[in-house]
Amino acid sequence: YVDKRSVDLLLFYLIVSTVTPLVQENRTLVQIQDLTPAKADQLVWLRARVHTSRAKGKQCFLVLRQQQFNVQALVAVGDRASKQMVKFAANITKESIVDVEASVRKVELKIESCSQQDVELHIERIFVISQAEPRLPLQLEDAVRPDGEGEEEGRATVNQDTKLDNRVIDLRTTTSQAIFRLQSGVCQLFRDTLTNKGFVEIQTPKIISAASEGGANVFTVSYFKTSAYLAQSPQLYKQMCICADFDKVFCVGPVFRAEDSNTHRHLTEFVGLDIEMAFNYHYHEVIESITDTMVQIFKGLRDNFQTEIQMVNKQYPSEPFKFLEPTLRLEYTEALAMLHEAGVEMGDEEDLSTPNEKLLGRLVKEKYDTDFYVLDKYPLAVRPFYTMPDPNNPKYSNSYDMFMRGEEILSGAQRVHDAQLLTERATHHQIDLEKIKAYIDSFRYGAPPHGGGGIGLERVCMLYLGLHNVRQTSMFPRDPKRLTP
Amino acid sequence: YVDKRSVDLLLFYLIVSTVTPLVQENRTLVQIQDLTPAKADQLVWLRARVHTSRAKGKQCFLVLRQQQFNVQALVAVGDRASKQMVKFAANITKESIVDVEASVRKVELKIESCSQQDVELHIERIFVISQAEPRLPLQLEDAVRPDGEGEEEGRATVNQDTKLDNRVIDLRTTTSQAIFRLQSGVCQLFRDTLTNKGFVEIQTPKIISAASEGGANVFTVSYFKTSAYLAQSPQLYKQMCICADFDKVFCVGPVFRAEDSNTHRHLTEFVGLDIEMAFNYHYHEVIESITDTMVQIFKGLRDNFQTEIQMVNKQYPSEPFKFLEPTLRLEYTEALAMLHEAGVEMGDEEDLSTPNEKLLGRLVKEKYDTDFYVLDKYPLAVRPFYTMPDPNNPKYSNSYDMFMRGEEILSGAQRVHDAQLLTERATHHQIDLEKIKAYIDSFRYGAPPHGGGGIGLERVCMLYLGLHNVRQTSMFPRDPKRLTP
Repeated sequence: YVDKRSVDLLLFYLIVSTVTPLVQENRTLVQIQDLTPAKADQLVWLRARVHTSRAKGKQCFLVLRQQQFNVQALVAVGDRASKQMVKFAANITKESIVDVEASVRKVELKIESCSQQDVELHIERIFVISQAEPRLPLQLEDAVRPDGEGEEEGRATVNQDTKLDNRVIDLRTTTSQAIFRLQSGVCQLFRDTLTNKGFVEIQTPKIISAASEGGANVFTVSYFKTSAYLAQSPQLYKQMCICADFDKVFCVGPVFRAEDSNTHRHLTEFVGLDIEMAFNYHYHEVIESITDTMVQIFKGLRDNFQTEIQMVNKQYPSEPFKFLEPTLRLEYTEALAMLHEAGVEMGDEEDLSTPNEKLLGRLVKEKYDTDFYVLDKYPLAVRPFYTMPDPNNPKYSNSYDMFMRGEEILSGAQRVHDAQLLTERATHHQIDLEKIKAYIDSFRYGAPPHGGGGIGLERVCMLYLGLHNVRQTSMFPRDPKRLTP
Repeated sequence: YVDKRSVDLLLFYLIVSTVTPLVQENRTLVQIQDLTPAKADQLVWLRARVHTSRAKGKQCFLVLRQQQFNVQALVAVGDRASKQMVKFAANITKESIVDVEASVRKVELKIESCSQQDVELHIERIFVISQAEPRLPLQLEDAVRPDGEGEEEGRATVNQDTKLDNRVIDLRTTTSQAIFRLQSGVCQLFRDTLTNKGFVEIQTPKIISAASEGGANVFTVSYFKTSAYLAQSPQLYKQMCICADFDKVFCVGPVFRAEDSNTHRHLTEFVGLDIEMAFNYHYHEVIESITDTMVQIFKGLRDNFQTEIQMVNKQYPSEPFKFLEPTLRLEYTEALAMLHEAGVEMGDEEDLSTPNEKLLGRLVKEKYDTDFYVLDKYPLAVRPFYTMPDPNNPKYSNSYDMFMRGEEILSGAQRVHDAQLLTERATHHQIDLEKIKAYIDSFRYGAPPHGGGGIGLERVCMLYLGLHNVRQTSMFPRDPKRLTP
């Protein structure tokens, strides 16, 4: 009987021995994705979760899972397994982690429901490493079911709050695994591209002494006997690094917005991918660096993350993401003309509403066949005080947003790098100069012309994958109503 | 006269034109580091800071600087320059940014004070891009002077608070440039090594609803109508990712400690390089992954950052950092024996004091000739409740610290992955179970054996370089008394 032994081993594993490192019993664990007919008739060990379990007379069928890979496994009464062992296996709860020793067998009929379709495992020994509670708060197969599918059969889907409340289980689904592996890829592509371009990574403080833009939408922190704030962006610090001769910098880190916005695209804490760089003659050098970085990310995802993209598409179908090289750059006035033509009434110096951004995205897609573009030269009136005015037309500014599938993912600009002009612009915006003194003083000791922008990581992932809620691309999202888990 | 023209160009540059992208006047800017005798007699354009300026009769000598590179430049009355131009050049304030057109000339005698020792520039045109205020809050040459040097001549050094108060200037020094380029390298080496090992990068929230370890040393945040906290570590979230089948994860991000410690090695906000991984049979698999990652970082720094290391050593001399392969692992009892032998009196289950850590570091260096080692199997009593006890000796635990030059840079452990044992351990530590319910519940649905640790980025940089204050390796340090800039 294996039962007694497995209990011993369970204890053994739970508090793992300290004596012999690395390999116990000369055992090498295999990966499920490596289980192919090439391994037929070999005896292997593996550690996996019990994905499903179904007892049927003298047999118990399990599906064993490692991340997105799974394989069928069988315990059957016979030479190697006793009745009790089949019963023991049948009683292992779903999501438990087990070690099994099994022989790999080629199958005649493909097993359509598993990632390993050509083999199954005949289990000889099975040990429980970690037992899951019998009642799961959600079923993985429900959590990955496309909306509407199986409704007639009364099959459930799982609503978003239940998923997020039980994130530790929801993250095990193929969809979540794919989303966050792709997100990891976005960060890597972002950094590698910029490092290759000579950018230096910086670390900027998140606790700051003064709220830079007047104090709206900022979280307050108790700081010993005083108060402080959470940074709404690393912008001032990026700019200080430029003034300190780092020339081209980037940073990846949390950004905090105390905005009571309960929409599909707002979070109170998100990850900012930030860029700032000195330029030589024209702020379009900055736009080119950023758009090229985005293009490298899109290419990297397309070329190296097809499995993940397909996995997400199974649950959330979407069109492949389209982009141009070089990236399309539209001026604000051109965009307004397109919107006017489509019947939208809005003034020249008015900001784009979210619906108008969406509509513009559709018009641009129709006309240029791209899901990514830059909108350049925003009206000066709708941009922050530190935005460089357009020297040729004081109504406009050297600032830009970037869009994916009609939604904003980046906001950026050439910054005013002259303390005197900055003082004038702040005064014009009726900002208390005392509060931004440190900011303005940063530019008094020689500052090169520079610009940059901040990209929202979760939005990039959401829009690249054609998802519809930014909470799907934040592992542990924070919004005005959610602080857990 | 160049004056009028340069003023026009100053305005032109300040508000850079929007029309022609990239290159004005067909001009390519060269890098100072590329100015070698190979470029002799060529006419070049470059943009640089005025590092020093010295007028002498009909000549003005400038040193032009780009980061750590500088070159001597000369404006002399003659064919190309008027008296007025020399006067104009002499009046350009230090730290101003200028564009110059100049002819590269080979020199007979090496210019010892510059990085480009074999050439100088004969300036034909000079334009001010950004003018620095005439009085600088600190002098760069003072800020890089080694302690004690030139004291007799009455030469100044700059104290740390003055440097930090004027960080935008202090970061321009060769020492600061080198420190933070090396820091950027540490992050890159950390991530690249782990990515190659199959780790996935995760992003964890910094605003959390409950202070996990009882609420000491935690910053409180106002969160809409309620309160929240700043995460003291990403540990719970890393562990949730392991329970969610990500297998091996890392993250790089800010960590917050509301500790009123005013020491050379404590910050209230620092950058955590965090690792967490499932292991197969023994938590030493985790130690090996972490120590190998550290070794890859040390090798990468040694092989690719010699210039930066030398640059820092000029101001702060230190011995080269030594490490072994494989990394030395000492058990706590062995360390105690070494300390006892050196005359230290302390109990078996007592934690190491900071002076004893330092002493132990010296003893280990003498005996094993390494600046990096692991101290394994800490007494259970001095570790947090979630630490896995040693199954062979209940006085000890499967936990470890890592040290560089006798100071702790990482604390880690095998974590208790069984909800029942975790409940027992928390109860033993008299922790309110209600407050850590979410944490314990994470392990109820199958959790693999796992462990990890958190590395302090600033400490790694400080100790690798042999510096003596962690504020030197934090761009914008935060401590109980410093919230700015």
